Amino acid sequence: MCYLGFDIGARKGLGMKDTRERLLATGERLFRTQGYSGTGLKQLAQEAEAPWSSMYHFFPGGKQQLGAEVVRCAADRYGALLAKAFASCSDPADAVAAIFKAEARILSESDFRNGCPVASVTLDVASTVEELRVPCAKAFDLWIGTIAQGLGATGLAAKEAKALASYVLASLEGAIVLSRAEKRVAPLERTGTFVVQTVRTKLGQR
Amino acid sequence: MCYLGFDIGARKGLGMKDTRERLLATGERLFRTQGYSGTGLKQLAQEAEAPWSSMYHFFPGGKQQLGAEVVRCAADRYGALLAKAFASCSDPADAVAAIFKAEARILSESDFRNGCPVASVTLDVASTVEELRVPCAKAFDLWIGTIAQGLGATGLAAKEAKALASYVLASLEGAIVLSRAEKRVAPLERTGTFVVQTVRTKLGQR
Repeated sequence: MCYLGFDIGARKGLGMKDTRERLLATGERLFRTQGYSGTGLKQLAQEAEAPWSSMYHFFPGGKQQLGAEVVRCAADRYGALLAKAFASCSDPADAVAAIFKAEARILSESDFRNGCPVASVTLDVASTVEELRVPCAKAFDLWIGTIAQGLGATGLAAKEAKALASYVLASLEGAIVLSRAEKRVAPLERTGTFVVQTVRTKLGQR
Repeated sequence: MCYLGFDIGARKGLGMKDTRERLLATGERLFRTQGYSGTGLKQLAQEAEAPWSSMYHFFPGGKQQLGAEVVRCAADRYGALLAKAFASCSDPADAVAAIFKAEARILSESDFRNGCPVASVTLDVASTVEELRVPCAKAFDLWIGTIAQGLGATGLAAKEAKALASYVLASLEGAIVLSRAEKRVAPLERTGTFVVQTVRTKLGQR
């Protein structure tokens, strides 16, 4: 079993970072907690301790541009964490278990506020704002690709690895939704158990 | 294999229904498409063809009261559909397959607009509006209970049936999120395949 130190909270205390970084980090935090539509730009600027004028200086396309950039940053950062999980575990099924465990820890340590920003943005705007749906789809695609690469290291065919990775990510995302509603990690734990079992079976490592 | 006719669209064309019904049905439709926070009461009243005054007549507690009622109605209605799935299929694994297939059809026929209203409301408000989080948690609990009852009909112990049901629902919810982002049913199909396989294995019906 390997331990995965997901440093999701590392963007807190960004006093030294520049204003653009602070706006993006605050956007991500607020989208995770209260969704895209529920986040107003005034609240965002205020919580980022950024002057109002900086919002349109850095994001002349307004909220949608900022939202798309938040999604792209989150995609890259979480993608790197997923890659790290597979690099840290010799058994890919252990990496999947570590990913579910890390999510459970992120949720319980944040009082279930820190959900997935990409899922939140998706459910708010996938059907109404194409400029934001596309980055969300690309984020999920990147994560599926990263998980597939990790699972494929055992020799699983690329197509099968992608299908399995898509299932792993979908189950993880849904378990986060249920855990946030219940304010308990039980859905993540239960779902993780079955998903890891399925991955082990599929990889022939029972 | 059994076919499941999920009549999710049955609330369309509510000309004969009363105003309160129209407000709730329109709320559900809008929450599914654009989330809770992205739905304004004025848009809702307008699309429900309801006079503005009726909003606070029927829902004196405002948007939160209406939101909670929408979630409760959706919980009951989808719960009945899940029960119908298990009642229609002699093999519970076939029922799970039918549930995933029905969701894929609902999404593709609605151009991926008709997501899960409870997941949408959860991601927008679970961390900020307790009055709405609780009905969302109860909705998921009802659905898990219904699926567990269907799975338990084969003799699976109640606790195991609940854990398996929680995994089925989480995977379904997450696959809907991915399918909406991608605007393709592939994530639902792939996830459904693995989940049904897991259910079959667990129920010893391979």
